[in-house]
Amino acid sequence: MLLCDNSLYMKIEKQQIGDLNKKSIIAHKAQFNFLAGQLTHLGIKSQQLIERLKAFQVAIPSWALGAGGTRFGRFSYGGEPSTLEQKIDDIGVLHALTQSAGAVSLHIPWDTPEDYEAIKQKAALHNIGFDAVNSNTFQDQPDARQSYRFGSLSNVDQHVREQAIHHNIEVIRIGKKLGSKSLTVWLADGSNFPGQHNFQTALQYTQTSLKIIYDSLPKDWKLYIEYKPYEPNFYSTVIQDWGTSFMLAKECGARAYTLVDLGHHLPNTNIEQIVATLLHKGMLGGFHFNDSKYGDDDLTVGSIKPYTLFLIFNELVYGMAKNPQNPEIAWMIDASHNIKDPLEDLIQSLEAILIAYAQALLIDQQKLRAAQEAQDVALCQEILQTAYRTDVRPLVKESRLQLHGALDPLSAYRSLGIRQALINERGKDARASGL
Amino acid sequence: MLLCDNSLYMKIEKQQIGDLNKKSIIAHKAQFNFLAGQLTHLGIKSQQLIERLKAFQVAIPSWALGAGGTRFGRFSYGGEPSTLEQKIDDIGVLHALTQSAGAVSLHIPWDTPEDYEAIKQKAALHNIGFDAVNSNTFQDQPDARQSYRFGSLSNVDQHVREQAIHHNIEVIRIGKKLGSKSLTVWLADGSNFPGQHNFQTALQYTQTSLKIIYDSLPKDWKLYIEYKPYEPNFYSTVIQDWGTSFMLAKECGARAYTLVDLGHHLPNTNIEQIVATLLHKGMLGGFHFNDSKYGDDDLTVGSIKPYTLFLIFNELVYGMAKNPQNPEIAWMIDASHNIKDPLEDLIQSLEAILIAYAQALLIDQQKLRAAQEAQDVALCQEILQTAYRTDVRPLVKESRLQLHGALDPLSAYRSLGIRQALINERGKDARASGL
Amino acid sequence: MLLCDNSLYMKIEKQQIGDLNKKSIIAHKAQFNFLAGQLTHLGIKSQQLIERLKAFQVAIPSWALGAGGTRFGRFSYGGEPSTLEQKIDDIGVLHALTQSAGAVSLHIPWDTPEDYEAIKQKAALHNIGFDAVNSNTFQDQPDARQSYRFGSLSNVDQHVREQAIHHNIEVIRIGKKLGSKSLTVWLADGSNFPGQHNFQTALQYTQTSLKIIYDSLPKDWKLYIEYKPYEPNFYSTVIQDWGTSFMLAKECGARAYTLVDLGHHLPNTNIEQIVATLLHKGMLGGFHFNDSKYGDDDLTVGSIKPYTLFLIFNELVYGMAKNPQNPEIAWMIDASHNIKDPLEDLIQSLEAILIAYAQALLIDQQKLRAAQEAQDVALCQEILQTAYRTDVRPLVKESRLQLHGALDPLSAYRSLGIRQALINERGKDARASGL
Amino acid sequence: MLLCDNSLYMKIEKQQIGDLNKKSIIAHKAQFNFLAGQLTHLGIKSQQLIERLKAFQVAIPSWALGAGGTRFGRFSYGGEPSTLEQKIDDIGVLHALTQSAGAVSLHIPWDTPEDYEAIKQKAALHNIGFDAVNSNTFQDQPDARQSYRFGSLSNVDQHVREQAIHHNIEVIRIGKKLGSKSLTVWLADGSNFPGQHNFQTALQYTQTSLKIIYDSLPKDWKLYIEYKPYEPNFYSTVIQDWGTSFMLAKECGARAYTLVDLGHHLPNTNIEQIVATLLHKGMLGGFHFNDSKYGDDDLTVGSIKPYTLFLIFNELVYGMAKNPQNPEIAWMIDASHNIKDPLEDLIQSLEAILIAYAQALLIDQQKLRAAQEAQDVALCQEILQTAYRTDVRPLVKESRLQLHGALDPLSAYRSLGIRQALINERGKDARASGL
Repeated sequence: MLLCDNSLYMKIEKQQIGDLNKKSIIAHKAQFNFLAGQLTHLGIKSQQLIERLKAFQVAIPSWALGAGGTRFGRFSYGGEPSTLEQKIDDIGVLHALTQSAGAVSLHIPWDTPEDYEAIKQKAALHNIGFDAVNSNTFQDQPDARQSYRFGSLSNVDQHVREQAIHHNIEVIRIGKKLGSKSLTVWLADGSNFPGQHNFQTALQYTQTSLKIIYDSLPKDWKLYIEYKPYEPNFYSTVIQDWGTSFMLAKECGARAYTLVDLGHHLPNTNIEQIVATLLHKGMLGGFHFNDSKYGDDDLTVGSIKPYTLFLIFNELVYGMAKNPQNPEIAWMIDASHNIKDPLEDLIQSLEAILIAYAQALLIDQQKLRAAQEAQDVALCQEILQTAYRTDVRPLVKESRLQLHGALDPLSAYRSLGIRQALINERGKDARASGL
Repeated sequence: MLLCDNSLYMKIEKQQIGDLNKKSIIAHKAQFNFLAGQLTHLGIKSQQLIERLKAFQVAIPSWALGAGGTRFGRFSYGGEPSTLEQKIDDIGVLHALTQSAGAVSLHIPWDTPEDYEAIKQKAALHNIGFDAVNSNTFQDQPDARQSYRFGSLSNVDQHVREQAIHHNIEVIRIGKKLGSKSLTVWLADGSNFPGQHNFQTALQYTQTSLKIIYDSLPKDWKLYIEYKPYEPNFYSTVIQDWGTSFMLAKECGARAYTLVDLGHHLPNTNIEQIVATLLHKGMLGGFHFNDSKYGDDDLTVGSIKPYTLFLIFNELVYGMAKNPQNPEIAWMIDASHNIKDPLEDLIQSLEAILIAYAQALLIDQQKLRAAQEAQDVALCQEILQTAYRTDVRPLVKESRLQLHGALDPLSAYRSLGIRQALINERGKDARASGL
Repeated sequence: MLLCDNSLYMKIEKQQIGDLNKKSIIAHKAQFNFLAGQLTHLGIKSQQLIERLKAFQVAIPSWALGAGGTRFGRFSYGGEPSTLEQKIDDIGVLHALTQSAGAVSLHIPWDTPEDYEAIKQKAALHNIGFDAVNSNTFQDQPDARQSYRFGSLSNVDQHVREQAIHHNIEVIRIGKKLGSKSLTVWLADGSNFPGQHNFQTALQYTQTSLKIIYDSLPKDWKLYIEYKPYEPNFYSTVIQDWGTSFMLAKECGARAYTLVDLGHHLPNTNIEQIVATLLHKGMLGGFHFNDSKYGDDDLTVGSIKPYTLFLIFNELVYGMAKNPQNPEIAWMIDASHNIKDPLEDLIQSLEAILIAYAQALLIDQQKLRAAQEAQDVALCQEILQTAYRTDVRPLVKESRLQLHGALDPLSAYRSLGIRQALINERGKDARASGL
Repeated sequence: MLLCDNSLYMKIEKQQIGDLNKKSIIAHKAQFNFLAGQLTHLGIKSQQLIERLKAFQVAIPSWALGAGGTRFGRFSYGGEPSTLEQKIDDIGVLHALTQSAGAVSLHIPWDTPEDYEAIKQKAALHNIGFDAVNSNTFQDQPDARQSYRFGSLSNVDQHVREQAIHHNIEVIRIGKKLGSKSLTVWLADGSNFPGQHNFQTALQYTQTSLKIIYDSLPKDWKLYIEYKPYEPNFYSTVIQDWGTSFMLAKECGARAYTLVDLGHHLPNTNIEQIVATLLHKGMLGGFHFNDSKYGDDDLTVGSIKPYTLFLIFNELVYGMAKNPQNPEIAWMIDASHNIKDPLEDLIQSLEAILIAYAQALLIDQQKLRAAQEAQDVALCQEILQTAYRTDVRPLVKESRLQLHGALDPLSAYRSLGIRQALINERGKDARASGL
């Protein structure tokens, strides 16, 4: 039996993971040693790179632990967490296995804590921190006096704007009690039809509202302003692109930043260039991982365009070293798990992130700079692809091993029968709050 | 008071509409006479054109009468119809005002009739026919033995395919009892991730399943096969484009056709050319109207790209005359009313459809053919735009007037206080079945 | 015979146009009077609106008067202008007929004048002014010491950057001698492959180069910074979007602005919102008209998406009234005439622009604001579409008539046999400089 | 000195390549042996896989050996081949180094041979075959009586259609003399403006014209019909998608097939599914490799979306085994070398193709089928990504080594100083025929 005392965590003991790792440790060590030897020839110190991987922690949003859906329907997954405590337990499972999911990003009001101390203890037990808190002004709550049907911070109705502002301030208050240090604002505000919005007015109201929220932040907090071109509104979105977010953040103040969500771009956008521009200006605050083929599809990270992910990491690795004025970036996975077990999906996402990061760390930056200076385009491509084509999985595994995580988290998750245990505990029809 | 005996229809008397029309009849007549005079100069007989407009009837799907939503939420509209009878009443309102919504397209199981005779009488009362019936194999019903989580007609599991096939046969059975003559199959089947589907197998299963359904059709029925590139699946859709639908229809048999939904195309697709190709091959069976800027946005017809709508109608007008082998097309509005009153939204859609149709009827086809033969590109454009730039609203109004509909349906709807009457009758929180 | 003294202008006498107008003046007056009467009912003073139309002047770029082409080939058009004088003559024809093409926008080095006084006299003869001058750092000139193969203002090679900067300064010098007051910089700079560019470096070099150019501007000049997401580079463009242009302009100084070219956007971009944002910030400097379905297709204005053009004009009309801090906007047509007679194409573009402008002027802004305040979305749409659906051609014709232009410029152009006259004068194989 | 007797080929002796390989053979062997050992554990026989790689030959089009350009300009590359003989020499260089470019695909009239025997001997010397011949009906030739300005096989003018048909028949005649066995028809036909084309007429003319060409084919020849959604026409293309090509091919006859060019799709198209559908129907005849981010960008294969390339190869590998009714596919690289040395670019493309092929060959098809049957989506993804993440470069190198090609063709090409030798021989300003 995996569970005891209503707590899953206690049962994924380091010992269990260690036992599972034993089966594949010899093969891993052979692969790792061979790769490390190859890298040594190239002047790369594997352990330095591994330390970078070990330090990379990605927040899991509290809404990502249940089954997601579309407007056409939703297929439930058994054993979904129905309380915040259970969500943190799920992240605890992820973190125990992967050692790279060391934070939770809360969504209010879906996850408003009742007992703060209990929640904090629970999180501490799993070694999980509280990352950015997220406000919700795109759904009406049962007791709400005002409706967000026509927008929130940009609404022409002052009462709606005030309600939305106060909600954000309330979210900050909750975040403070948990130890968060940043607020993410994603606005669904926009319009469905030409003429519905006065664009200038909507932008101005948004600016004014954000400034009030910004001014309510504790001095050691940051504000992340997310952008998105469409959906749930299908004609316009108030903060439609990075340029709008950048402009709004600049007018809020020095601790306001742009947040990039990979799925929030028009077809064919060069996202890596946006990332580079924001880093160059010290304005990249938050980063939401996912993947997509058509729109904001919220698929598993790296499942559709892994090379783009690598190119983005190239900019991130470069910018984190080169742009000290840019703050530490808040990483989060923002995917929707419509047909996969959410925990399996997140394990695959975390793996894809670390692989892309490791590949990007392999890029010979000095050689790349030289090739760029020489305008040797074929060589520039060769340098990137040499890094990308390297099988870096042994590095990622080794970094987990050193942290006592699982060599192969997905197979460990299955071997341990965790989903069945969750169903046994929570039932087949438990449903997570969220979308 | 508008309502009596629980039936709205009785209250939108021709008299009421006639009274409202009186206010604007003089202005209308002046506008109409001026336009008719202008058209006479061009050799166009207005009344002939008006007869075409009068004959154009668009089906309203039973799911379009409540508020629509997105995965991020749904904002209810007061007075939504919660029974099939109420839905037909709503269409009755639409038809009384516009005289162009003379049919309903049912969705099973959302609208499975309980008392067929009562439903048929209700529809007859409103002068509304039963167009294509629609099956649903994208949502799991409470009592279903098999889940459509991983597809229906294309599912690798034979039991699921069988359930989906039987459901379609059941839908045909229901349609027969109501007087429908066609079945529309929209498959949500597809995959979210590379590798999930064996494309060839999924296509083959779909082919085989459709053939069984096709063979179950009464001899005077038609099968419409809809296509869509993505959503709710975000990596692939089994029937992704017109080519796939065309191929499947061809293999089903002579009464299987392709159905075009305007929102089901990749960015920048030339839809009017697809329409022309299908007409050329006698394969255009059904047509779903809506508008969109980004994806399957399901916005009010003509609200985003009215010129494209006109260009499509150009092909329809031409093909309906030129391609006798093509069957009569089943017209339907397939929009989602996320923030507007659904009835107002549908009124605007019907208006946009008739305007585009009237404009297309104004195109001087003979002159256009001559300009095309002469490769006089500037003139070709001029001929189309001359028709498009004409203010055809007096023609559309006149066609409604001759049918005793409202000169201005939207303002009549508001003047009659219909939404408030519906709220009074059905309550603020009634919710329509559907998405 | 139309031509004398090697100058076309002398021959499109007001008299000739007046004679042609006589044929349709009665029909026009009837249409105009009817429309004016209708507008009076709505409280709109036609003459006020006509004055706005009369004042609207669009620059013609000197490169738009010959046949355009694609990388797959180019089909010449007879009688193309091969000198700057001939180009100005062609614009003279356009302006005589339309009375709305009262300026030329020169491209250097394609149109470097040899005799400034002669050019100025020629332009004065046609009543044509000199709008923004355009630099070219995307092609190598025969005598160039440095190549722009890998970029210009962003090039890693300082010598190339210097050459490109000096070229821009030279363009300013030429513009000053002609009476221009602004410089448009369109950079083709970008990369074809991941890794080729260091995005941060390229952006920084561009910033620095633009600042030097900006500082070289006369005090009464403005700098317009154009953006474009791709082509001729197919992986990245240094100034990929309005956000980048905006940021660069802000760092240059108070007389640097963003230039919007309609074709320079990713699929599905909401351009009208960008226009509104720039106006709100007082940052919209230049505007290039064209139309497109797929990319930077450079088609005739209004030929593909006339409703979008109208929506953009809605923002322009509103912003020009509401945002006094925004400068007067420099209007230009930037289309490529691959298969139509360039002059016919431009006539159609000018017509489409004035129609969209007139429609936008018909929008009841007060009623629209009220509907927006009331969140009456259906009414907002109705207000816009009421304006759009109005046949405003009589207003546009009347404005031309009052300026002694042609009622129907395209048919006048054909009646006067201008193309044949140009071929007679210049030959079948004359080729314009440009693309 | 590399060159003698005006022939480059003689100088890339196997010996030279062998000498270069010596430097890295030890490292290669270590890498290969390690990988082969790993694969053995997985039950994969490396040598079987290597034999597949060795057999994979990709045709090089004769127009790809010079610098490409855009409508904005072209930057020449020194030493471009200006005769067909020189082009074949260039392919000889490629083939000597990579051993995977064993065919040339000729474009007529750019490469019409003068002395057939000499050309055939030259090709034989390089061990290069003649793949599909390509017709050109998108450019006017100096001596042409009819212009393709408004289309060719779809033109409303019968004389133009006849000229285009006869040209294709002439191309077949030339191909027969060289030993080609197939004709590729890419039509640029389409329209730039709504109204220009009667879509039905254009389609019908195309059908009729293609049938005549098809009927002129020798019995052992195949016809490949290419599709493309836009460019050089920007409103419509006659053969806009695979569905149109499929339909046309079906009506031509049993030896007519669809040709897929990776760059000829609308944004977000699922190309791998199209490939699977065509294979399922036995209709995939030709395949053009390249890569793109925005449109038909014609970039180096694998430079933008290598995972998509892998997914396509997954379908190809599966279909080539599973669909014996599908003919052997004609592979070709169709890229444009705007800023890289064309030969370097092609070397990188060939490498990317073989890598994707090798990765696809590593997919455990049996396990994948089982996971698909079990609807285990996470596992399906895992199986694909396990193959994709493997560093297969040692397999590709080994396959070249066994054929006496270069272990690292790009570095060999540079070490041998081939570009400089070509410049020395042909001059700095030689220009290849083509785009």
